[in-house]
Amino acid sequence: MRVEEPTSSFRARQERLRALMETHHLQLLLVTNLVNVRYLTGFTGSAGVLLLGLREGWLWVDPRYTLQAGEQAVGVEVIEERKGILPGTSKWIGKNEVRELAFESASLTCAQFDQLREKARGNIQFKPAGDLIEELRVVKDRGEIEAIRAAGKLSAEVFAEILPHVRRGIKENDLAAEIEYRMRRNGAEGAAFETIIASGPRAAFPHARPSSKALEESELVIFDLGAIVSGYAADMTRTVFLGQPSRRLLKLYSAVIKAQAGAVQVVHDSASAGEIDSAARRILARHGFSRYFTHSTGHGVGLEIHERPRLGKGETTCLRSGSVVTVEPGVYLKGLGGIRIEDTVLVGPQGPEILTPAPKDKWVIS
Amino acid sequence: MRVEEPTSSFRARQERLRALMETHHLQLLLVTNLVNVRYLTGFTGSAGVLLLGLREGWLWVDPRYTLQAGEQAVGVEVIEERKGILPGTSKWIGKNEVRELAFESASLTCAQFDQLREKARGNIQFKPAGDLIEELRVVKDRGEIEAIRAAGKLSAEVFAEILPHVRRGIKENDLAAEIEYRMRRNGAEGAAFETIIASGPRAAFPHARPSSKALEESELVIFDLGAIVSGYAADMTRTVFLGQPSRRLLKLYSAVIKAQAGAVQVVHDSASAGEIDSAARRILARHGFSRYFTHSTGHGVGLEIHERPRLGKGETTCLRSGSVVTVEPGVYLKGLGGIRIEDTVLVGPQGPEILTPAPKDKWVIS
Repeated sequence: MRVEEPTSSFRARQERLRALMETHHLQLLLVTNLVNVRYLTGFTGSAGVLLLGLREGWLWVDPRYTLQAGEQAVGVEVIEERKGILPGTSKWIGKNEVRELAFESASLTCAQFDQLREKARGNIQFKPAGDLIEELRVVKDRGEIEAIRAAGKLSAEVFAEILPHVRRGIKENDLAAEIEYRMRRNGAEGAAFETIIASGPRAAFPHARPSSKALEESELVIFDLGAIVSGYAADMTRTVFLGQPSRRLLKLYSAVIKAQAGAVQVVHDSASAGEIDSAARRILARHGFSRYFTHSTGHGVGLEIHERPRLGKGETTCLRSGSVVTVEPGVYLKGLGGIRIEDTVLVGPQGPEILTPAPKDKWVIS
Repeated sequence: MRVEEPTSSFRARQERLRALMETHHLQLLLVTNLVNVRYLTGFTGSAGVLLLGLREGWLWVDPRYTLQAGEQAVGVEVIEERKGILPGTSKWIGKNEVRELAFESASLTCAQFDQLREKARGNIQFKPAGDLIEELRVVKDRGEIEAIRAAGKLSAEVFAEILPHVRRGIKENDLAAEIEYRMRRNGAEGAAFETIIASGPRAAFPHARPSSKALEESELVIFDLGAIVSGYAADMTRTVFLGQPSRRLLKLYSAVIKAQAGAVQVVHDSASAGEIDSAARRILARHGFSRYFTHSTGHGVGLEIHERPRLGKGETTCLRSGSVVTVEPGVYLKGLGGIRIEDTVLVGPQGPEILTPAPKDKWVIS
C-alpha cells in the first residue's frame, strides 16, 4: 500500500519553511533530523544531510543512496559524498564562505558539532534554529492526511481481524506477533511502535510491553497498536474483558468511553491542546474516576508516533485544521488492571474525524 | 526466550570502565547513550541517565520506570525525576559542586549540552570522554555470548523453516513478514533490523528493502535477517536461486562461499579487522570477482546490530577472544543481482565459532 505524495507538496513545505526562515533572519539551515529531511524533500534513506538556503537546497548522501536520492528528493541538488556525509557538507560550507549557519540543536550531537566547526573552518556564526520544522509539521497537508487515514483504516481492520482470536490461554506475545504480521500482510510498511498487549494486573502499567503471559478468565486486556503507511503512523487503543464484567467495571468502561468521546468532540480548529485534556479529565471526574487517569490525554502523530502538540494539562498550543492527534484517556487500578481507549483524530474543516474506525462496544468476550 | 545475565556481569563491566576512567583521569562520567546504560547496569527502559563515579553510581529515571529500574539496575542508586531527567541530573551535578564532568559527546545533542551547562551552573569543566564504553563492548562476556548464540540459533532455525516456502510468485514483503512473525513466535524479542529480501536485479543493491515484487524463475534471492534475544542481535545472510543456475552463476556462488569460509578461518584472537577483510578479497580476486565486492567484510554485533570493529580495508583494530563479528562478503552485478553469504562469528578460545548455523549448500530451488 502506498499513498503517493505529489512533488508540489515538498516544494510547498520548503516554501513555508523559507518564509519562516526569513521571519527569523536565517539564510541557511542545516537539517540533520532525518525525519525533517524526508518531510521537506521526500528522501527516505537512512543517512543524509540537507542544507536549505532561501532559494536553493543541497542534499548530501553516501554512494548507497545516490540513485535513490536522485529519484526521490524534490527541489534540491543531490551531492554524493564518499568520505563521510557531515564532513563533506562541512567542507562545502567552508569553501562557500558561509558566514552564518542555522542548525537543529536537538538533532546534532556535540561530536558532530565539533566536526562541523572544525571542517568548515572560517569565522562562521552558528545559530540554533529551534524547532521550526517540527512546528510546520503540526499542520498536515492533503497527502499526509491520506497516508494517516490509510494507516488508521488498516490498523482498525487488523484489530477487527484479530478480535475473534482473543481468548483465554493465548499469550500476549503471540497476539502482538499476529497483529504485526497482519499489518505487513495487509500492506503496511510495519508497526509504528512495539504493539502493546497488556492483560490482567499488567494492564495497570500504561507502558507495559507484551510478555509471555497468557490471557486468563476475568481479565482486562489492553491493545495499543498502529501501522505505518507511506511513512505515516496511526495510533489506536482498545480494551476488552474476558468473562462477565462486574458492575464497577461496567461503570469504569462506560466512563472512559464517555471521556474519550467527549474529548474527541473538543478537537476543533483553534481549540487548545489543554482544553482537550481537561475535557477528558472533567468527564472522568464527574464519574469519580479522575484520580486513576495518570497520563496526558494525547499527542500529535504523523511521520513520528509522538509529535507535537502534547495534549496535556495547561498546554496552550492551538490545534489547526489539518492537525492530527490522538485522544486516549485511560484509568489504571493496581491489581485490577487498566482501561484505555484511543483514536487518531483529524482536525477536519467540519470538526473532528476519527481515523481509526474500530468498534468500542464489542469489548466483552464471553 | 531469555538468557539471564548475572548481576556480577554488570558489576564487572562497571569495574572495567572505572579502571579505564582512572587511566584517563576521569572522576565522573555522564552516560546518555541508552545502550551503554543498559550494558553497564541492566536497565532496559526507554529513558534514563547514568552518572558513574569511581566508587558510586546514580541512575535518573522518570516515574514510569522507577519500579523497573529498582528491579533491574545493578550497582547504582535509582533517583526518580518528575520534571525532566536531564534537567534533574544537571541540578544534582550543580548541587554536588562537581568540578569536572566527562560526557559522551556522540550521544549528547547540542541542545542537551546547553541545558546541562545551564542547569548545572557552576564552573564545571566538561570533557568529551570518547568511546570508552563502546571499546569495552568489543569483548563480550559469557552472558552476552549466550544471548547472541541464542539469537543466532533462532535466526538460523527461522531461515530453515522459511526455506520450503520460497517459490515463484511469493512477494518479498510477504516473506519478510513471515520471517519476522516466526522470530517472535519462536521466542525472539523481535527482528534486529528490517529483514532484507531482495530478488532478481534488486539483489544488486546491497541495502535493498523488501518490496511488493514477486519472486520469479531464474532469480537470485538474498535473505538478510537477524533476531534479538535478551537484547542481543544476530545477523546472517543466505542467497538462493530459483531454477537451474548457469555455469557462471555456479562459479560466482562457489567463489563467495570460499571467500566467506576463508575469511571466517582468519577470525582469531589478535587477528586485525583488516586481515579478515583482505582474506575475503584475496579469495574473490583469485576467482576474478573482487571488483564486484563493493562493501566491507563485516562488523561487530551485540546490543546493536552494527558495533565495533568494522572489518574493512586497512582496519588495524585487533579482535580479542570474546569478540563477535559478522563475515559477509558479497558480489553484486548490475542486472543479474547479487550473492551474499553472512554468518555471525565468535572469536572463541579455540578459534572461530559460527553462531548462525544455517546451511549454505541448499541454495538451488528447482
